Amino acid sequence: MSVPHPYWLRDNCPCPECRAPRGGQKLFRIGDLPDGLSAVEATRDATRLAVRWSDGHRSHYPAGWDAPAGPDERTEHAKRLWEAADFARGLPEADWATYLADPEERIAVLAAVRRSGFAVLRGVPAVAGQVLRVARSFGYVRETNYGELFDVRAEPDPANLAFTCLAVAPHTDNPYRDPVPTLQLLHCLRNDCAGGDSGLVDGFQAAALLRAEDPAAFDLLARTPVPFRYRDRGVELSAEKPLIGLDPRGAIREVRFNDRSTDTAALSAPAPAELDAFYAAHRRFAATVLRPELRLDLRLAPGDCLLLDNTRLLHARTAFEPGDGHRHLQGCYADLDALSSTLAVLRRTAAVLDELEALFEGEGSREYLGEAVTLAAHMLQAAALARAADAPPALVAAALLHDIGHFRGGGPELTAGTGDRHGEGAAARLAPHFPPAVTEPVRLHVDAKRYLCATEPGYAALLSPASVRTLAAQGGPMAPDEAAAFAAHPFGADAVAVRRWDEAAKDPAAATPSFAEFRPLLRELMQP
Amino acid sequence: MSVPHPYWLRDNCPCPECRAPRGGQKLFRIGDLPDGLSAVEATRDATRLAVRWSDGHRSHYPAGWDAPAGPDERTEHAKRLWEAADFARGLPEADWATYLADPEERIAVLAAVRRSGFAVLRGVPAVAGQVLRVARSFGYVRETNYGELFDVRAEPDPANLAFTCLAVAPHTDNPYRDPVPTLQLLHCLRNDCAGGDSGLVDGFQAAALLRAEDPAAFDLLARTPVPFRYRDRGVELSAEKPLIGLDPRGAIREVRFNDRSTDTAALSAPAPAELDAFYAAHRRFAATVLRPELRLDLRLAPGDCLLLDNTRLLHARTAFEPGDGHRHLQGCYADLDALSSTLAVLRRTAAVLDELEALFEGEGSREYLGEAVTLAAHMLQAAALARAADAPPALVAAALLHDIGHFRGGGPELTAGTGDRHGEGAAARLAPHFPPAVTEPVRLHVDAKRYLCATEPGYAALLSPASVRTLAAQGGPMAPDEAAAFAAHPFGADAVAVRRWDEAAKDPAAATPSFAEFRPLLRELMQP
Repeated sequence: MSVPHPYWLRDNCPCPECRAPRGGQKLFRIGDLPDGLSAVEATRDATRLAVRWSDGHRSHYPAGWDAPAGPDERTEHAKRLWEAADFARGLPEADWATYLADPEERIAVLAAVRRSGFAVLRGVPAVAGQVLRVARSFGYVRETNYGELFDVRAEPDPANLAFTCLAVAPHTDNPYRDPVPTLQLLHCLRNDCAGGDSGLVDGFQAAALLRAEDPAAFDLLARTPVPFRYRDRGVELSAEKPLIGLDPRGAIREVRFNDRSTDTAALSAPAPAELDAFYAAHRRFAATVLRPELRLDLRLAPGDCLLLDNTRLLHARTAFEPGDGHRHLQGCYADLDALSSTLAVLRRTAAVLDELEALFEGEGSREYLGEAVTLAAHMLQAAALARAADAPPALVAAALLHDIGHFRGGGPELTAGTGDRHGEGAAARLAPHFPPAVTEPVRLHVDAKRYLCATEPGYAALLSPASVRTLAAQGGPMAPDEAAAFAAHPFGADAVAVRRWDEAAKDPAAATPSFAEFRPLLRELMQP
Repeated sequence: MSVPHPYWLRDNCPCPECRAPRGGQKLFRIGDLPDGLSAVEATRDATRLAVRWSDGHRSHYPAGWDAPAGPDERTEHAKRLWEAADFARGLPEADWATYLADPEERIAVLAAVRRSGFAVLRGVPAVAGQVLRVARSFGYVRETNYGELFDVRAEPDPANLAFTCLAVAPHTDNPYRDPVPTLQLLHCLRNDCAGGDSGLVDGFQAAALLRAEDPAAFDLLARTPVPFRYRDRGVELSAEKPLIGLDPRGAIREVRFNDRSTDTAALSAPAPAELDAFYAAHRRFAATVLRPELRLDLRLAPGDCLLLDNTRLLHARTAFEPGDGHRHLQGCYADLDALSSTLAVLRRTAAVLDELEALFEGEGSREYLGEAVTLAAHMLQAAALARAADAPPALVAAALLHDIGHFRGGGPELTAGTGDRHGEGAAARLAPHFPPAVTEPVRLHVDAKRYLCATEPGYAALLSPASVRTLAAQGGPMAPDEAAAFAAHPFGADAVAVRRWDEAAKDPAAATPSFAEFRPLLRELMQP
């Protein structure tokens, strides 16, 4: 049986020679593969494809390894394009305290920013500097010449029109920067002036409308780099990018729109003959952006923090009367890549916990090597003993998970590990998700039995018959030099503690907690 | 006379209604211009083009306003593409202390990063954390999941192959990030192992070679988004970008190349029929990148800090033997936009100082309103008096520059200001470059005379005949309420100080310093 696209297939060989087991980094260079690579033998069954290659290498692909990926998450194809009426029933919003406490709420907020381009957090303390805390809840602050954070309020000698009380038309921020900050946060500290309302426009939707209504104008804007510029004391920023940025296949991927900082004197872009066409297209796009049905009006109240995708959404504000009131926002920039990473980790964490819970409830209910309790009850009892001993969370988790190497199954998240000795295997499966303080005691808990049998008179007598049976297969009691090395291991003592709970957790009469009780503790450990 | 491209011309009207005098932000929206805009009248002479528009607006364009801009500085067209032999006579490098002290050296280093993609700073103290100081000398640190800075050395349980002692093939960093960090810094703290040499490859040159030798392969890579991915505990980063990124006109603008983190299982990119062609192109590009003549070898010694353009240059290292030695680098990420801004400000600063010096030496040598000294001597004497009085640098600068409103000329950097009353005019010309502590006393020094005449008995008697003559034209002594307001102004006292030096700086017998003596002081004030 021959295989299609041999280099592609081989490029994706998941074996530990080709991919680092932890993290999955590729361990060979694409040019290291021989010319004329082909499959000598290929067999496929329900669970995997096995290939022997012309250079002798063997690859085994699990079913579904080549499941088609979704569209690039930054393009229009991964977004929900919107007009104002789409939010008639409410904005994507959440309470700050709930967002902090509940991973599902965090997932909802971050997913809304990715999908709709924005979300509002309510009840963020209206105290200076909190906007940085919001940014750091999912990513990293992008410092600029405006500082780590910047105050948006009327200033006496403003360098930037943002810092006046004038209306500001819909725009994306900092188009004169490359890379542009891909996220903006605006946190309202005070807003008791007349006016000063906010407005949002989906720039992807405006671009899509232009494409539908005037494809030639859309094309011209997409292929014309426009110079943007901002200068002030100590600053001279410029970037050259089209108003509508496409991916190589023509999907909308970025909008830059900012009347204030387009610097078309330097427009080297269109041929002179195209200048009039460019301006007609530019004005048509500008008119599209200003259509009332596209503009979502909202008023930020103290404590509201708006998160918005600055590669897509335009934001605006109405003029305000300083009068007796004040309008004071604090803003900062951040980036979408870290937001998406945090969202993916939150989802992965939930998936791993679901898988573990399913394993405890499924395979875990089977008999455990002849012991009087099931495998799940054994591990849950071990965790309960650790908890009762006031062990630190990582050690409670290690006690809970120490025998997952005995599980055969596991979804995609838990099959990354290799090896099936049960300590090593469990540690390898957990390593992508848990810190060494969890995985090392798990890995070493088999050795801990061998250590205790060697060093603690009478310990062997406490072992259950099943545990005595496996001791020989595991290598028997440690030799003195091996035991000394084990005692010196940074996680040796923790492994011994897990081992003692392990031995004690085989009591058919003991109360057994549920897996669900340990989910918050596990989740906490999975998110550094 | 009609004008070509009326919207383009009008979009670039430099009048203060259309452009904020400070910073040049545009004050109208492109859609605010009426449909069917045309020029009713246009006249051109050697120095400017004057246009009266169909909506009644009038514009005046200085000669050269539409001077063609250079190419987008981020594309191949603004770069010097290189092979290793091009640096046979030496690398772009500088001594850290000189770089800090000498703006010309800073310009040379930053310009080399922009043009060749890299530079080496020597003698950066081999102390932890210094790499952040280097980044902050021209820009902002981009924090990532690796921290503000990261240590590159062999680690016991590495999540990333960078943190082993294995060879690392030429690659760009973090292709799984979008926006990718556009600059990387690597600072060597220790390097006394066998091996561990560094290598650099110009990715733009490799891409240009591929285009010349196999245009179809180049096109395929440029139009195929490739998924990149990195996962670890707490991190799940992914981005989809072509290996070769082009601007909308087809110029090479970005290279992403990293065997370790290409995740082609998710390659939705080419049609299945194109997969083999994609791999042939990918392997050909990979082979091009590895050509020995492209690879510049260098060995980082303690204190060396390598700055490299991560959108263009690939970096590599040879394997090393930990043995008794250590190889320890510290790295951080930053961005090209801030680097380019700093470079532009350094150049602008030099241009402003050159212009000022030329004005002092040219127009400044003319007679000064009938005084016994020239205008330049007058201002230099005022600065000398301020310096002798131990005035702070901003006030010395204000004394030096207080009368530049009398100069008519000035190059492009100094003509941004408006208004020709000499205090206001001077302040407006200086405002884009100097802080209020310089510009406010300059602006107020005329009023300070009116204040002193109103509040200080006998002051008027000290005025020179010319100064008495101009007093009436300037408004005469202040009324009491005006004087009280002036006294309360935050820079009122500074303006009075400048005024006293002004009056005293008309002595044909006094020693007069040169403008050059004040350049370092001015430069310091221009770079916040």
